[in-house]
Amino acid sequence: MRAAIFRNGEIVVDRMAEPKPGLGQVLVKTLACGICGSDLHARQHAHRMVEMARKTGRKPMDLARDIVFGHEFCCEIVDYGPGTTRKLKPGIHVCSLPALVTPQGIEGIGYSNDNVGGYAEAMLLSEGLLLEVPNGLAPEHAALTEPLAVGVHAVAKANIRGGEVPLVIGCGPVGLAVIAALRIKGLHPIVAADYSPARRALAAKLGADIVVDPRVSQPYATWAEHAQMSDAEKAARPPFQAMLPALKPAIIFECVGVPGLLQQVFEGAPRDARVVVVGVGVCMETDRHEPMLGIMKELNVQYVLGYTPDEFAASLRLIAEGQVDAAAMVTAEIGIDGVAKAFADLANPEAHTKIIVQPWR
Amino acid sequence: MRAAIFRNGEIVVDRMAEPKPGLGQVLVKTLACGICGSDLHARQHAHRMVEMARKTGRKPMDLARDIVFGHEFCCEIVDYGPGTTRKLKPGIHVCSLPALVTPQGIEGIGYSNDNVGGYAEAMLLSEGLLLEVPNGLAPEHAALTEPLAVGVHAVAKANIRGGEVPLVIGCGPVGLAVIAALRIKGLHPIVAADYSPARRALAAKLGADIVVDPRVSQPYATWAEHAQMSDAEKAARPPFQAMLPALKPAIIFECVGVPGLLQQVFEGAPRDARVVVVGVGVCMETDRHEPMLGIMKELNVQYVLGYTPDEFAASLRLIAEGQVDAAAMVTAEIGIDGVAKAFADLANPEAHTKIIVQPWR
Repeated sequence: MRAAIFRNGEIVVDRMAEPKPGLGQVLVKTLACGICGSDLHARQHAHRMVEMARKTGRKPMDLARDIVFGHEFCCEIVDYGPGTTRKLKPGIHVCSLPALVTPQGIEGIGYSNDNVGGYAEAMLLSEGLLLEVPNGLAPEHAALTEPLAVGVHAVAKANIRGGEVPLVIGCGPVGLAVIAALRIKGLHPIVAADYSPARRALAAKLGADIVVDPRVSQPYATWAEHAQMSDAEKAARPPFQAMLPALKPAIIFECVGVPGLLQQVFEGAPRDARVVVVGVGVCMETDRHEPMLGIMKELNVQYVLGYTPDEFAASLRLIAEGQVDAAAMVTAEIGIDGVAKAFADLANPEAHTKIIVQPWR
Repeated sequence: MRAAIFRNGEIVVDRMAEPKPGLGQVLVKTLACGICGSDLHARQHAHRMVEMARKTGRKPMDLARDIVFGHEFCCEIVDYGPGTTRKLKPGIHVCSLPALVTPQGIEGIGYSNDNVGGYAEAMLLSEGLLLEVPNGLAPEHAALTEPLAVGVHAVAKANIRGGEVPLVIGCGPVGLAVIAALRIKGLHPIVAADYSPARRALAAKLGADIVVDPRVSQPYATWAEHAQMSDAEKAARPPFQAMLPALKPAIIFECVGVPGLLQQVFEGAPRDARVVVVGVGVCMETDRHEPMLGIMKELNVQYVLGYTPDEFAASLRLIAEGQVDAAAMVTAEIGIDGVAKAFADLANPEAHTKIIVQPWR
């Protein structure tokens, strides 16, 4: 089969053997797979990713061997391995969180030497993790389940009590997923900031009530304009808080993920803000920040990663029921031969948000 | 009056004018005032403190002018200024949080050029903030209200739901206050770590169930030994968590406050841990840490500072009612002439925990 392979630090197109489904596994044809910012990061900083896997006790990639990225996929059932119930017939479209149950335990799909990701014509999934795609949903939109689940999980971890005013910093795919999940929670107004006009337009489309261009106005100042307490809320405060600014609680979602961003958030955040760090790009580098700012403002920082199986399944339903306008995020559909160029193209936020690979093209 | 004054980076004894109570203010005789780690830090890093005050919009100290430190005090009422109700008679012992209501607004006591702190024979307090010391409690123990309130506040901000196993890193006055507050919350077992045998003994006295010498065993490993889920708790987990270690939720209190400590906590913390940063010494310096560790483990970091007026009043009651063994923390009582030497002595955790200044001595 053909695949876009990560080899010697580059993405190259080559043929490789089609995988064979083992115990409880399913062979699937890959219909659509989104390119994630983490994939771009992995191509550039694979060594750091290996180091971090070692540090956190996970199985690191062997960079001397081939790897096929791609963990945001929708597939079609082709064949079953031994020990399967085969409830879903061949031809049915399915999603799965990017994990494979193997005799050695649960392994990841997409950053693994052993488990091929979605930038190949076929891959293996675990029968127990399959979710049937409902409502005749297009595979290109079902493939957005994974990035949406990241936003759904981040909002769940934000521990929302009601009455907060959210500020989303960065409106790439992660920020957009957070905005979509916040809209579903019914929290308003949602304030979102991004330098890119295209990304701001998408943010508004997915549910942001106020979009901010940081070149034109300071996101935290704009947030404060829209977070003023009502007179009733002011009156309900304990007396010692009367001297503080009368602002509703802040929840800031950091969805940019570059070093230095957390320090910027610490500087801009209002007192008592909760900060949810969803930007995964930040991850590979040591960051610097002044804890004193966190202390002076009594900030809370929640780091988040991934999602639960329930959140993943709920995300697929949200897209299938039209509650999230997944189609709005897709800016291009390409074949395996286009993956290397797409990695470069994604650097321009005006041109692209989510590029979908269709390996059968 | 006599005072231990912070002048040109040193603590010197000199005479200064007794302050005059303004509108709503009270002149008090300082009976006892604890020396806080923040005071040692301020003596060494006063310039950083000034810089941070500027950054966070607070009035910075003018280091060219005299400052009298001391914000953990118990006093005796001497005289009242205009506009006071004078409900508490002269001679009555009082505590107050270290703030003074002035015509310019609320100002701090203890790191101010204008408002003398507790290392002087007399000071000014605001009538509205006075708390009468109950039960004939000794001023030296009533003065511990402020540091205890720091622990009570940290535990309140930890958002305890029940069932967590706390780990207290560092058993100086802040860590001890956290342990005392945790004991009152009824959370068990309380695990606490410190290199100093004297501090570990105090930790046990104040309520730690397990004390760890990090030279002998790894605090996080010891914590894990005492945080194993019961069989019922194991069975109640959602299926996808069954592959994770069966540990009760962790709340880690960082009470050391040196740069690099947060990174150590990030490395040692179990998945999903909540980290409460109470170490104030860390504050003045830019710190480095790897956010990726936070992300991989989905850590939550709550920075805390100070306390509310209610928490302060509750802390005084806890000491007065004998619920917290405040006396255990006091390792020396000195006069104004002893303050400079006490600042040096406090570097040795074996010798001292809390030194109380009695300016009348």
